Amino acid sequence: MTTFNYPTNAPLKEALRKFRELLISEGFSPGIETVPVDQAAYRVTSEAVYATICSPYRPVSTMDGIALAAGLTYNASDDHPVTLCKPQFVPVYTGDPIPDNCNAVVRNEDTAYESPETIQIFSSVSPKQNVRQIGEDICAGEMILGSFMEIAPAALGAMISGGITEVSVLTRPVIGYIPIGAAPDSNSSMFSSTLTEWHTIPRVYPIVPDEKDEIRAAVKMALRECDMVLLGSGSSAGRENNAVSVISELGSILCHGLAIKPGKPTLLGYHGCIPVIGIPGNPVSGLIILEEIVRPLINEWYRIDHPDKRICEVTLTKPIKSSPRYEEFVRVRVGEVGDKLIASPLNRGSGVVTSLMKADGLVRVPEESTGYEAGETVSVDLLKPIERMSRTLVVTGSHDMLLDELADMLHAKYPDLYMMSSHVGSMGGLMAVKRGETHIAGTHLFDEKNGTYNTSFIRKRFPKGNVKLIECVYRVQGLMLPKGNPRDIRSVRDLTGKGLRYVNRQRGCGTRILIDYLMKKEGIDTESIYGYDHEEMTHTAVAAQIAGGTADAGLGVMSAARLYDLDFVPICTEQYDLLIPDEAYELDIVQKVLEILKSDEFAARIEKLGGYELHHPGTIRRVFDDQAAKEA
Amino acid sequence: MTTFNYPTNAPLKEALRKFRELLISEGFSPGIETVPVDQAAYRVTSEAVYATICSPYRPVSTMDGIALAAGLTYNASDDHPVTLCKPQFVPVYTGDPIPDNCNAVVRNEDTAYESPETIQIFSSVSPKQNVRQIGEDICAGEMILGSFMEIAPAALGAMISGGITEVSVLTRPVIGYIPIGAAPDSNSSMFSSTLTEWHTIPRVYPIVPDEKDEIRAAVKMALRECDMVLLGSGSSAGRENNAVSVISELGSILCHGLAIKPGKPTLLGYHGCIPVIGIPGNPVSGLIILEEIVRPLINEWYRIDHPDKRICEVTLTKPIKSSPRYEEFVRVRVGEVGDKLIASPLNRGSGVVTSLMKADGLVRVPEESTGYEAGETVSVDLLKPIERMSRTLVVTGSHDMLLDELADMLHAKYPDLYMMSSHVGSMGGLMAVKRGETHIAGTHLFDEKNGTYNTSFIRKRFPKGNVKLIECVYRVQGLMLPKGNPRDIRSVRDLTGKGLRYVNRQRGCGTRILIDYLMKKEGIDTESIYGYDHEEMTHTAVAAQIAGGTADAGLGVMSAARLYDLDFVPICTEQYDLLIPDEAYELDIVQKVLEILKSDEFAARIEKLGGYELHHPGTIRRVFDDQAAKEA
Repeated sequence: MTTFNYPTNAPLKEALRKFRELLISEGFSPGIETVPVDQAAYRVTSEAVYATICSPYRPVSTMDGIALAAGLTYNASDDHPVTLCKPQFVPVYTGDPIPDNCNAVVRNEDTAYESPETIQIFSSVSPKQNVRQIGEDICAGEMILGSFMEIAPAALGAMISGGITEVSVLTRPVIGYIPIGAAPDSNSSMFSSTLTEWHTIPRVYPIVPDEKDEIRAAVKMALRECDMVLLGSGSSAGRENNAVSVISELGSILCHGLAIKPGKPTLLGYHGCIPVIGIPGNPVSGLIILEEIVRPLINEWYRIDHPDKRICEVTLTKPIKSSPRYEEFVRVRVGEVGDKLIASPLNRGSGVVTSLMKADGLVRVPEESTGYEAGETVSVDLLKPIERMSRTLVVTGSHDMLLDELADMLHAKYPDLYMMSSHVGSMGGLMAVKRGETHIAGTHLFDEKNGTYNTSFIRKRFPKGNVKLIECVYRVQGLMLPKGNPRDIRSVRDLTGKGLRYVNRQRGCGTRILIDYLMKKEGIDTESIYGYDHEEMTHTAVAAQIAGGTADAGLGVMSAARLYDLDFVPICTEQYDLLIPDEAYELDIVQKVLEILKSDEFAARIEKLGGYELHHPGTIRRVFDDQAAKEA
Repeated sequence: MTTFNYPTNAPLKEALRKFRELLISEGFSPGIETVPVDQAAYRVTSEAVYATICSPYRPVSTMDGIALAAGLTYNASDDHPVTLCKPQFVPVYTGDPIPDNCNAVVRNEDTAYESPETIQIFSSVSPKQNVRQIGEDICAGEMILGSFMEIAPAALGAMISGGITEVSVLTRPVIGYIPIGAAPDSNSSMFSSTLTEWHTIPRVYPIVPDEKDEIRAAVKMALRECDMVLLGSGSSAGRENNAVSVISELGSILCHGLAIKPGKPTLLGYHGCIPVIGIPGNPVSGLIILEEIVRPLINEWYRIDHPDKRICEVTLTKPIKSSPRYEEFVRVRVGEVGDKLIASPLNRGSGVVTSLMKADGLVRVPEESTGYEAGETVSVDLLKPIERMSRTLVVTGSHDMLLDELADMLHAKYPDLYMMSSHVGSMGGLMAVKRGETHIAGTHLFDEKNGTYNTSFIRKRFPKGNVKLIECVYRVQGLMLPKGNPRDIRSVRDLTGKGLRYVNRQRGCGTRILIDYLMKKEGIDTESIYGYDHEEMTHTAVAAQIAGGTADAGLGVMSAARLYDLDFVPICTEQYDLLIPDEAYELDIVQKVLEILKSDEFAARIEKLGGYELHHPGTIRRVFDDQAAKEA
């Protein structure tokens, strides 16, 4: 066992505080440079900026008209115009200086020339009327902008008006990124675009092999060229040994290992005042460490406050379980249903970069907490504007690829509208409707008693009605099999074959209910099927397993099989409907989706996916007729 | 009179709607280009992007450990380890593919090598434990990002993981800006930095003389090179004649003159699908037209929704008067006092660029409205994060230059804190405290009955106490006079001299109360003093008038006179205090300001300004002792 002389599971906040203090005591701070004012936009001032001239620097006209001494216009009116001769008046345009001996301007509309030299005035003016005074905008010597303030375009304009030609600003930090060994390709461009957006200068070095000498050379060069150095690597502790040795040798290590998840294998080191940070290789961990460690250091550099994060309270749709050993960051999607903000936790794997992309917010589960229950109210740091939530359609329930197409069509047609879908199976969708946590639920629940879809389930769970069932598509379910069907599977019965690896869908989803029913009908003991407990959340995930060779069969929709060029044995055609609570049905965003369902473009896209039939998409199905009500 | 065949006072919304429709019908839309994925950050997709590979593309380990068939670990524990020999196990690092015939990973901590070939396992694992499945992140064929979506860094990472190498995006619009004639210098850099921030490509042309031929040549060139053309000029209608003729000649004019203020002299024209927009020369009008006309067109181009503006309800501290002929945009500062958001209207001159810089929000006064009263609740479009408001100290009352220094010191020391000060005079400050609309009020109210400052006013207006009076500075008030004192003014009595132009402060401010008292004491009729009704809002504004030669004398503080190198005749030393309501006194931000008042750095800065004495700044003055309470 190696013994470390630094913490290996440091709480984030504490580690960051120590790291900042240490770096500041070592002299971590920006340089100061003077830049021409017209190149200073979005830089940060290093000292207060004072106007050197007044603006305007002498009285100017605010109108097109004639300048004169106000007293000359006394009692002038439409009925009793006053006639003046040059040089009693001087024509001026807006922005022109007021000549000496003049103190007001009569606008052109209230004058009429009798000759080039004489003019009639139809309206009196008082002194200073239509005149901007000296220093109305800026007085010389006034502070235009204080220290450590960002120079927005308007501030730039104010500085130029105040006579400033050059401005003293903080240098931008140069942040080097050295990818080591197996670091994913995608990190370099993700990190550099993020660092650019944060107004720093990223410098991405070529990938360095995981050899001490090579790493040492690269780090030495970066230490000469940069204000901060990031070392990227596979997130494995084993793999970081070389980087760790090099950092200990060239500088010091404050800690290696943070008590956060994702982001644990982070290393905080330094060489003098230059932070040297080992960033986990997983893209999600990497971006989180950029946000949680690198960004606070950039803010320290610029002396700006933490980015204005909006925190709000949300209701969880699914439980979040967490280890009490770590502070855990869970990415969530956030939507507004009724007047409730609801959050669906996304896939938490630290390699799951799509979860970061889809995330509307982060829930922080503190150390020592074991997590939250569904329905609990928790705080979320919003990553997107809260206004967007009210323009986001929340779809919860059964997965179908057509939902992505629908989302795309909605946003392409109405750029201010978004759709988020969360795959919790048909039954999960019904429950979400019941709890008021979704606008739409995709559902295809088969009732083995009467061979119908959805209606009996809905009547049972919504005895009072208050919901509408909308016809969406009919889709072909069947067995997805490797190309060429090597095991010659023709029916569900063939799934019992020796050594066959099945891949299933999760409990509560319509496809799982269907396969359970088929198994029961055939009298097959599902225990005898290897992999029947291997659960995936989507049709595509099942197809990907089969295409990847880790499973031999799975039940799913034809469109997913086509996508992966798999063989497909049709089993049945099922109804995939949308359940919509009455309150949501009235919403404009829901009506727009129904409109799209009825469109030819939707039909064309569905046709392309394959395996669907369209009858009357977008229309209301009869669920609660009198007969049905009696049965219920 | 010229007759126009286009509207000259078009309502903004209507004009913009027509302009957009017209441009779209002419073919205003982005091109599409393919860029390498690592250069696609913050571009907008032109079509949905689908993954071409799964990520991970085969099962990989999530731990450093050994891969094996899970069944081999059955019942392994600390007490009963299981011993395995190669090739039963394969060492793997995080991210490594799982070898065939293995389906789980035991982490290193739960193993111990007996020899390089044999290992002890202290913990059992189930199948798939510590393994990321094929497609856990992205399944091939899944939609990664829909059409017309901005590619944030996380989306970039997801695309790279999903096998995307190139992505089809919308071209960035090239927006030309041609400054004509007298356009202020500052506009080019303000506009180009704003346009860059909005992800467009600004192209600033050299200043063109206000001659038809020259303008025509410049516009023709811009029409060849740009997707949108902006013509900048003096805001005067007269000056725009040449630009107008050229636009009518080369294209068409939709309208010239919008019913908004500032921004009236805007021209909306087009040449085919290229918008040609005449932008007013005043910087404030210019930035507003950029925001209200150009930005919606950019959003149309990118198919993105309007920027997420946060609208909130605020209480006005001053009335806003508005002409019913125009939709008026009034810039306001916003602060949070108690649980109330309060807004102070800023100087509304369209040339007053500092008002834009200081603005936290915009109040839109619709056409047909004559404005709002103080205390009325109105909607404001916030320009800054609402979170900042709660970290902003609101100072309302008498003006002193030390307030700017204080604001600068506060923000420099505590980067997340801001201070906004609004100059309404001492009495205005007291009223703001009474209405709960300020944290601090600067006050120097002289009681002519007993020669004291502030205390008697406060006892009278706050009979219940609930406020604290904090000593700030003693400052020298006196007559500010042109350099060399050409009129040989030695006292207030000399202000009655023939032809002397006085410049005064506004009613209700302490300096005005002082001069009124001095005049009364001397028995001078203020009607006899020319310019006694010429009111400025700050000491510096008074000094600027005198330095600029538009006035001969004014009462003000010595620091302002020094700043403008004016002569100064001291009249008295007065107490400038800070009045703070008890609730605000407890606030951390207020305590920090008091701390700064007591600091040596504050003393040094005040010394540099000149004309001040410091006794016990930051300490509480006795106002409500027993004796005082009886008097009240």
